[in-house]
Amino acid sequence: MQVDRLNAAYCAALDEARFDDWPEFFLDDGQYKVQARENFDRGLPLALIALESKGMMKDRVYGVTQTIYHGPYYMRHVVGPARVLSDDGGLVRAQSNYAVFRTRPGDASEVYNVGRYIDEIVRTEAGLRLRSRLCVYDSEMVLNSLIYPI
Amino acid sequence: MQVDRLNAAYCAALDEARFDDWPEFFLDDGQYKVQARENFDRGLPLALIALESKGMMKDRVYGVTQTIYHGPYYMRHVVGPARVLSDDGGLVRAQSNYAVFRTRPGDASEVYNVGRYIDEIVRTEAGLRLRSRLCVYDSEMVLNSLIYPI
Amino acid sequence: MQVDRLNAAYCAALDEARFDDWPEFFLDDGQYKVQARENFDRGLPLALIALESKGMMKDRVYGVTQTIYHGPYYMRHVVGPARVLSDDGGLVRAQSNYAVFRTRPGDASEVYNVGRYIDEIVRTEAGLRLRSRLCVYDSEMVLNSLIYPI
Repeated sequence: MQVDRLNAAYCAALDEARFDDWPEFFLDDGQYKVQARENFDRGLPLALIALESKGMMKDRVYGVTQTIYHGPYYMRHVVGPARVLSDDGGLVRAQSNYAVFRTRPGDASEVYNVGRYIDEIVRTEAGLRLRSRLCVYDSEMVLNSLIYPI
Repeated sequence: MQVDRLNAAYCAALDEARFDDWPEFFLDDGQYKVQARENFDRGLPLALIALESKGMMKDRVYGVTQTIYHGPYYMRHVVGPARVLSDDGGLVRAQSNYAVFRTRPGDASEVYNVGRYIDEIVRTEAGLRLRSRLCVYDSEMVLNSLIYPI
Repeated sequence: MQVDRLNAAYCAALDEARFDDWPEFFLDDGQYKVQARENFDRGLPLALIALESKGMMKDRVYGVTQTIYHGPYYMRHVVGPARVLSDDGGLVRAQSNYAVFRTRPGDASEVYNVGRYIDEIVRTEAGLRLRSRLCVYDSEMVLNSLIYPI
């Protein structure tokens, strides 16, 4: 339940392009990784994006919003109810399936990136925070345009 | 939680083409608006559909089911868990991301309209009712065929 | 809530290709049916898949994983919150909308099958089990490639 609310807030920040809010869903030493399913399933380390602290996430946001030249697009996340694998009071392990739709100006909405979040979530005084979010996506065909976090 | 149930019932009514049930999710003076994200983000008033009472919604349903000639299609809504922004006991403000898929006879299912619901929900003796539902959709490319409510 | 968790676990088993786990979501005499909406709405019996026991499901899994030659693909389910229609303590009747995305190797993810689950769910000592899951899908255009359970 609380994980669903975390996901809803997380997705709203990205879909509303409030990218500066995005690192705040993580612990200071939080991890964020975006990896193809093919590599994940084989235990290979190669990842499309791998950020190992909130500082790196802020750098990424700065790069994406200030320096990268790219065609603009909207994102829309639809996430299924979370599946909690374990919850020892402090640390919650959960997974959720997501579909992200992309809309480019003047174009129809399209399936952009589907996959699952594999999460380690920590209860803090400020609420739930991600210690680690691994996004395992099913298709390798959207890489060149994966600008914003998923 | 209750908002999720409201959304599930709302979507089931539309997807099962029980359009007469649709106005009943609203208060008598409920508002229903469908607006492009581009206009919403800029604070522009232009909306694709703007209905300002349950009576107008019933008129719309009558028009859609009895008088408009259009190619038939099925809808299928998949809505993410709601994000409750405030809840003062009587009034709940919530937002939810949605994806609507369309299936025309003999055709494959396709992404039809994605966006978010921005809701004001009131607790009544008969259960939760929408005081206002604003559907902000990401793409302007489906307008000519947006017949049924979203 | 518990239905949502059942759905999340069910979808994870299919999406992770743990097909041997799939029959375990059902009672021994559980029913699984996949039917086009057109037939369902008209009360016609024709179904694409109709399995009437866990044994038949295991046979199906064996066939799909060991004997059918077909192009490989990934599935990704995104399911909306369940709508509980009745709950008499032992038996829960629920419906949920689903979207399944398919990703073939080297290809983009695409909408594969959308529809709704119509479920009869029983509380057992081992947790919730499906007595019956009927998958009513909106489009008839994906039949030739519907290999795995939905």
